[in-house]
Amino acid sequence: MSATIIDGKAVAQTLRHRVAQEVAALDRRPGLATILVGEDPASAIYVSNKRKLCVEAGMRDRHRLLSAQVSQAEVEDVIDELNLDPEVDGILLQLPLPKHLDAPSLIERIDPDKDVDGLTETNAGRLALGRPGLRPCTPSGVIQLLDSAAVHLEGAHAVVVGRSDLVGRPQAQLLLARDATVTVCHRHTRDLASHTRDADIVVAAAGVPKLIGAEHIKPGATVIDVGIHRTEGGLCGDVDFDAVAGIAGHITPVPGGVGPMTIATLLRNTLTAANLHNSSHRETRTNGSGPARDGVAVTAGQP
Amino acid sequence: MSATIIDGKAVAQTLRHRVAQEVAALDRRPGLATILVGEDPASAIYVSNKRKLCVEAGMRDRHRLLSAQVSQAEVEDVIDELNLDPEVDGILLQLPLPKHLDAPSLIERIDPDKDVDGLTETNAGRLALGRPGLRPCTPSGVIQLLDSAAVHLEGAHAVVVGRSDLVGRPQAQLLLARDATVTVCHRHTRDLASHTRDADIVVAAAGVPKLIGAEHIKPGATVIDVGIHRTEGGLCGDVDFDAVAGIAGHITPVPGGVGPMTIATLLRNTLTAANLHNSSHRETRTNGSGPARDGVAVTAGQP
Repeated sequence: MSATIIDGKAVAQTLRHRVAQEVAALDRRPGLATILVGEDPASAIYVSNKRKLCVEAGMRDRHRLLSAQVSQAEVEDVIDELNLDPEVDGILLQLPLPKHLDAPSLIERIDPDKDVDGLTETNAGRLALGRPGLRPCTPSGVIQLLDSAAVHLEGAHAVVVGRSDLVGRPQAQLLLARDATVTVCHRHTRDLASHTRDADIVVAAAGVPKLIGAEHIKPGATVIDVGIHRTEGGLCGDVDFDAVAGIAGHITPVPGGVGPMTIATLLRNTLTAANLHNSSHRETRTNGSGPARDGVAVTAGQP
Repeated sequence: MSATIIDGKAVAQTLRHRVAQEVAALDRRPGLATILVGEDPASAIYVSNKRKLCVEAGMRDRHRLLSAQVSQAEVEDVIDELNLDPEVDGILLQLPLPKHLDAPSLIERIDPDKDVDGLTETNAGRLALGRPGLRPCTPSGVIQLLDSAAVHLEGAHAVVVGRSDLVGRPQAQLLLARDATVTVCHRHTRDLASHTRDADIVVAAAGVPKLIGAEHIKPGATVIDVGIHRTEGGLCGDVDFDAVAGIAGHITPVPGGVGPMTIATLLRNTLTAANLHNSSHRETRTNGSGPARDGVAVTAGQP
């Protein structure tokens, strides 16, 4: 074992503290609204963690628990109400939703400037076009982990394994925005190792336990593991940690790597959204014009 | 010289004929509106070509010529009017605009379902999320050229050189959607040749004359040249054609390669938009509900 461990818990804690300090300096407390549909125990735990850390960061916690039998129109009404509520800066619709609901159309209903998960078409487009916007939390957290370890991104060859909407694709965009040369691999890739072995940075987000082994990694490379799987031998990621830690220069553990960054980035996105809303309120007051929804540009992390 | 030439003029003509046949079978003629601001001679020629081929394909041609001194608000009014006009299916705002106008905000004002250039945040987001939408014309034309030459995309390693909003980034997304392993290179890439020499497909969209030489290409690879430059020795692309044609398996010429595909794809996008609008009109008539703007999903080429 030679690799330096990137301690996601510590980096996330530092980020949450920084968010809390900035929140304390604001005139108005930012608010995060969470919407939970049904009684799925894992979802309930996730939402309860988000709410707890939101309160710890000094933000306003607004929660809506809806029955598993709620209709599409009822969820739409809740989203519309939160979109209009000036005390709500961020809206988080906990996924997955019960099968009878149309999740993509509900996500699209969230005001893009309150879409702190960065999941709407508008925010995906802003990311793709390199414009300011709210970025998806997990890949954004990965960039912060890389920065915390002072990994040089400009000109580095980064290989992203996986091309999901939530992680792989936005991860590639965020790395590209930081001037890395980026390769996206996936299930159709022939000879995965030939690509990853060339990489200075590997982000494993394929959803396949221990997919990345020693033979996939160039000595000294940085390996970020987005996967998390419950196996008989305990939790593991998409990376075979024991095998790869002997070769990599930096590596994230599972758990305690990327995971804690997701909620910390959610809080930072809520603060970013609040700053955006505050500046458009100010603009409204001083200029008498309407809120500058698309004009006022607060950069959410990676531009 | 061993490479097979991909004849963009012929492929574009075939595509335009196919569009014309589909247009002839419709109850309602699709309409394309072009907006030209000022007297730039190159822009005037581009717009006039688009209008001519639009009419040849049997579509309705609507043109608005605005003075170079037009105000932002006046252009906004023209866009708003065309957004509402049921005879207009596609709106093309010819770029570049005079410096005093805010081009990105004018582009965002175009109804995403009439944005036949695929330039709005919404269409960029739909592409990034793999959802149906209107795709940018040039990279979409490149995919059709590859298909015309029966180049196998699934599992192929495609290297895109350049990361512009108009070509490089959407090109990478379109290739990824077709299951290629995709690498994006750019000015910060170290050792460009080490990436391109590994590629089955190279798309050169860097805007640098003859950037890609023999040393960049694997024998038998497919080379698509998006560049076009006026030099003392005549027109050339981003690829050193004479050097690369001896090595590549397939290659596009400049001119007569990617160029003609752009307008042909614009016409196809206008037809796609018209089909989208027709189906939402039908839905309105039969269901009495509002137009299904985001619901009715007509796939624009590559999903």
